[in-house]
Amino acid sequence: MPFDELHDTLRRVLLTTGMARDRADLCARLFAEASRDGVASHGLNRFPRFLRMIGRGIVDVHAVAAKTASAGALERWDGRQGPGNLNAHASMARAIELARGHGIGCVALSNTNHWMRGGAYGWQAAEGGLIGICWTNTLANVPPWGSTEPRIGNNPLVIAVPRGDGHVVLDMAMSQFSVGALTSYAARGEALPVDGGYDAAGSLTRDAAAIEATGRLLPIGFWKGSGLSLMLDLLAAALSGGRATHEIAADPELETALSQVFIAIDPSSLSPQAGTERVIDAAIAHLHAGDGNVRHPAQRTLETRERSLREGVPVDAAIWAEVKAPGVT
Amino acid sequence: MPFDELHDTLRRVLLTTGMARDRADLCARLFAEASRDGVASHGLNRFPRFLRMIGRGIVDVHAVAAKTASAGALERWDGRQGPGNLNAHASMARAIELARGHGIGCVALSNTNHWMRGGAYGWQAAEGGLIGICWTNTLANVPPWGSTEPRIGNNPLVIAVPRGDGHVVLDMAMSQFSVGALTSYAARGEALPVDGGYDAAGSLTRDAAAIEATGRLLPIGFWKGSGLSLMLDLLAAALSGGRATHEIAADPELETALSQVFIAIDPSSLSPQAGTERVIDAAIAHLHAGDGNVRHPAQRTLETRERSLREGVPVDAAIWAEVKAPGVT
Repeated sequence: MPFDELHDTLRRVLLTTGMARDRADLCARLFAEASRDGVASHGLNRFPRFLRMIGRGIVDVHAVAAKTASAGALERWDGRQGPGNLNAHASMARAIELARGHGIGCVALSNTNHWMRGGAYGWQAAEGGLIGICWTNTLANVPPWGSTEPRIGNNPLVIAVPRGDGHVVLDMAMSQFSVGALTSYAARGEALPVDGGYDAAGSLTRDAAAIEATGRLLPIGFWKGSGLSLMLDLLAAALSGGRATHEIAADPELETALSQVFIAIDPSSLSPQAGTERVIDAAIAHLHAGDGNVRHPAQRTLETRERSLREGVPVDAAIWAEVKAPGVT
Repeated sequence: MPFDELHDTLRRVLLTTGMARDRADLCARLFAEASRDGVASHGLNRFPRFLRMIGRGIVDVHAVAAKTASAGALERWDGRQGPGNLNAHASMARAIELARGHGIGCVALSNTNHWMRGGAYGWQAAEGGLIGICWTNTLANVPPWGSTEPRIGNNPLVIAVPRGDGHVVLDMAMSQFSVGALTSYAARGEALPVDGGYDAAGSLTRDAAAIEATGRLLPIGFWKGSGLSLMLDLLAAALSGGRATHEIAADPELETALSQVFIAIDPSSLSPQAGTERVIDAAIAHLHAGDGNVRHPAQRTLETRERSLREGVPVDAAIWAEVKAPGVT
């Protein structure tokens, strides 16, 4: 599927929901770019659920985020249950503006919806030449260390560093595997490469289906990821004044009123861009020197992106048919 | 050992190095507080090495960090190889000042020494009513995912959130276990609670001695912690203009010229403190509700601190004798 056809089709469908033209264009682009970059789970494959949530009134296509408090380089915005990717994009854009004026800028966003592919807002900062750091809370889908019940979110964290020779962008959830990844492994009957959670007997396992059955996903680093996930939730809820994970509906089709934080830092405010790039390039070069096959964050993304633009974006035929059907919303 | 006796003794020894009185007081307090809070590895137990590094001229007791660039809420400081805990404390103090003026403040510090117990600077922010986020790079002590050679640091990350009923402070390195923890388990002949790295056959193991022998410590979450550690190093080096992990001496006794980042955020600039506390308290209460025995970050620290202040700070007799010996430096 040519990227433009994917983008155009998603935009056309969004226009039927009443979304304004420029917003539908950006919203569709963010979905299409996720698929283009190999994150179909938060691209095309997530689009039908997004439409259902618009249909149910959980996502308000007309809502625009509004500033509710500010203190120089720090602002608080209310997402007013608007489309999560548009709210997140606007928040990182505002953090970038603040960073251009103050060196660093931070926007805390409450009452928003799932941001889809979090990495997008890291790429957004890096494409502007800025460092981007952002995270979101989620519904409770991981048991904290010491418990068997999901009471913390997997709270994805994104860190992006700009670089002429390909931005370096980390986009990771605090669970060792996402719910979507477990489903894929289970469907293929394939073992996880490392332990991903607990089976019914309470043992660590690589059996994705067994983990899906218990709901006991493993946080990265056991107690460490459990603690980090909690801190990201506390920061997001406290700074935005919005909901913490324990207040968010447990059903993914009803997950809304999320809290997020967007930080941008302008390294060019401290030193010439060339100096910063030299530091980054040398560290990346060293990472690849020596034994093994080491990859840096976003290296694979760029390879996938190039292949998608050359050969077309892979699309799931069934989902594509569903999205293209008339009256899909 | 009464806390005051520990503090006084360390201060007296520091004065013999020529360190100024007020600096010796703070430097000794930070070491003593680490032991008080159960982190003797970066408290008293680390003090003899600190003295050796002063003796070798790696740590300059007279050096005071100097600002080299600034852009509103973002500043760059040169640590001039001064004592790492004093530089870190001054940097967080400056980030707090910036946050009180701009809502958020960030100090990037180059050319500093080991900050000892990173959590100290999180507690420092929280005690001022601010959120603190800071991290450091380190010498290369962890193989990146896909390699068997240590080429990334374990780069501790600290996140602190203030709370009337006990601050919430996360202080975690990016390796599943610290080098010090491996040594302790190996000395006791005790198995690690979870896999901590690889043995000589390249298999994941809970055998601490086997991991010490290969030097193949596991990053938290496998590829995830590997990526996160790299990003923290890139940010620290790029923002401070200082060294990245690959440029830092591999010998712990020579480890210097580290790069660090200190961010403070003032939540009271956005909403009354009571509102923020309510959000945090409710999330922590929910964490402890339900099954299992869940602990939140710093819960155990506060218990240890109270016991130390009540019953005395546990000290290692051999290290205590070494520190108290005349002419120890």
